[in-house]
Amino acid sequence: MVSKRIGMQTMVIQRAAIHSYAAVVGKKEGEGPLGNEFDDVIVDDTLGQKSWEKAESEMFLDVVKRCVTKSGKRMEDVEFLLGGDLLNQIISSSFAARQIGRPFLGLYGACSTMAESLALGAMMVDGGFSDCLMCATSSHFCTAERQYRFPLEMGTQRPPTSQWTVTGAGATMLVSSGGGAHISGVTIGQVVDFGIADVNNMGAAMAPAAAHTFVTHLTDTGRKPEDYDLIVTGDLGAIGTKLFLELVGEEGINLPQDRHLDCGLAIFAPEQDTHSGGSGCGCSASVLNSHILTKLFSGELKRILFMATGALLSPTSSQQGETVPSIAHAVVIETGGVIE
Amino acid sequence: MVSKRIGMQTMVIQRAAIHSYAAVVGKKEGEGPLGNEFDDVIVDDTLGQKSWEKAESEMFLDVVKRCVTKSGKRMEDVEFLLGGDLLNQIISSSFAARQIGRPFLGLYGACSTMAESLALGAMMVDGGFSDCLMCATSSHFCTAERQYRFPLEMGTQRPPTSQWTVTGAGATMLVSSGGGAHISGVTIGQVVDFGIADVNNMGAAMAPAAAHTFVTHLTDTGRKPEDYDLIVTGDLGAIGTKLFLELVGEEGINLPQDRHLDCGLAIFAPEQDTHSGGSGCGCSASVLNSHILTKLFSGELKRILFMATGALLSPTSSQQGETVPSIAHAVVIETGGVIE
Repeated sequence: MVSKRIGMQTMVIQRAAIHSYAAVVGKKEGEGPLGNEFDDVIVDDTLGQKSWEKAESEMFLDVVKRCVTKSGKRMEDVEFLLGGDLLNQIISSSFAARQIGRPFLGLYGACSTMAESLALGAMMVDGGFSDCLMCATSSHFCTAERQYRFPLEMGTQRPPTSQWTVTGAGATMLVSSGGGAHISGVTIGQVVDFGIADVNNMGAAMAPAAAHTFVTHLTDTGRKPEDYDLIVTGDLGAIGTKLFLELVGEEGINLPQDRHLDCGLAIFAPEQDTHSGGSGCGCSASVLNSHILTKLFSGELKRILFMATGALLSPTSSQQGETVPSIAHAVVIETGGVIE
Repeated sequence: MVSKRIGMQTMVIQRAAIHSYAAVVGKKEGEGPLGNEFDDVIVDDTLGQKSWEKAESEMFLDVVKRCVTKSGKRMEDVEFLLGGDLLNQIISSSFAARQIGRPFLGLYGACSTMAESLALGAMMVDGGFSDCLMCATSSHFCTAERQYRFPLEMGTQRPPTSQWTVTGAGATMLVSSGGGAHISGVTIGQVVDFGIADVNNMGAAMAPAAAHTFVTHLTDTGRKPEDYDLIVTGDLGAIGTKLFLELVGEEGINLPQDRHLDCGLAIFAPEQDTHSGGSGCGCSASVLNSHILTKLFSGELKRILFMATGALLSPTSSQQGETVPSIAHAVVIETGGVIE
């Protein structure tokens, strides 16, 4: 059997197509530049639930249902659900999976989860283990704030380096044939830690991981940035993006600004006062599963690299003086018609 | 391409061998019935670290290093690390992965993580994506108690239904050829919730998930319990095991007692006063990666079903009145010589 692995961390995927996708976001995200591209903008961010955590889980469930509905398939056709979220013990995903009732593989990659689920899902489909599976993730500003930072009721002032956790969820259905775009490669990231200990500067913590995965991906594949119409990073924000571009520049890679999109910068307008931009699993998940995939399905984009980044800290690790280890996984998505 | 999926939730694996394995445990586990079968018994359960969380991460790192050493390979030969643990944001795994420096896929399946990592790892190897990867998980009594229950310093009395989180870690190296046993099938579980809300009775919460996965596995494969030398459950403990046997009995399946081993019951002796038995990711991981795999490698066991169970609650979900959703993944491991 021929290995599908090339270089150090990259796998070639021959048969994993994106059949459908869906994204739902909160009110603030709906007021952002991409507001009219999402499947739904939630006006009441409690979603009628008694807690923020239950609301986030409901949003996860909702986006999966929407993705199934858009696909024209039934929930029973979904052979596996791969997903995770930021909450302790990924309760948003697990409790939604209870309702969804399909075989479930729980993941934790912090804000890199959308890319991690797509990478594993693509390998499962390409490996012949599934003809239809769902990758999904979510985040919610109110659950993240009180878990990672402070109770909202405190009204704590946010430092300029901080990012705004996106209230949003995204889901992608992968299939073995058909589809409007397909995954043609994945690069699994290493944990990278440049010693950033400031929990209000996730962009700086994640940028080195993004740079490491990006450089490795280009080396593994022998490609250049120009081989992609767009390099999409997850949620580096303004500070992380600047650092990311510097770090790849130091490696001799020139990434023109018009070929790079950071979901954390794309989802909010500067006047929305989120400081360094958006973050959270739902940030890259909602932007990919609306704005980006729509452009791929329409042919406006031919080939992109989707590279979501995650900061693998916990409040406990930070309280114990640890720095912030980060990770980035990359997924190549391209058009080129139906896979037979 | 022929689908490798059979029935509803099961995949046939043709090429994923177990090359080596390792297990380390704490002092109490070392005093249990399997005490002399582990690679190491940690006398100081701080492992020289300043916190329990850092100690658990160190134990995770140690077991992976031991597994690599036993394999005769180098850490650089490990193409991927798949792992997770019980701690918020799986910091034991992520911080160990930072030291290990290999491409990392973070998982969360609570105490089912060992089976989840083996299932995904087996699909990656069988699918041609890797020739050598590591699956690992850990748990630590002291980190779990303070995260899920009470600070140890309180000396809270434990109810009779409670289980003792194992201080232990296990690692399995999967390869595409060679090896002393191989994975021949995996069944991915659904989230099952029978409405148990007692966070001190995880066995009862997890038993329905184990029964569901077991019945599905037998249906998918057309097999009977007699087709296995041993059915290994993760950490149902005394109460969960009784309920599991009742539930599968109701489905017309007779599982003879001498064909069933629950890791939670095997790891501690009744006089060790753990009440309902052991639990935690490290429970099934340490028993599999010592006692069970040694018997498979020696030929004493020919074919087993390893079925680890996880309770997908968080302290937050319980405080918000939620019941305990659970999951179980099953992995078929058998001998039959080297895979060419």
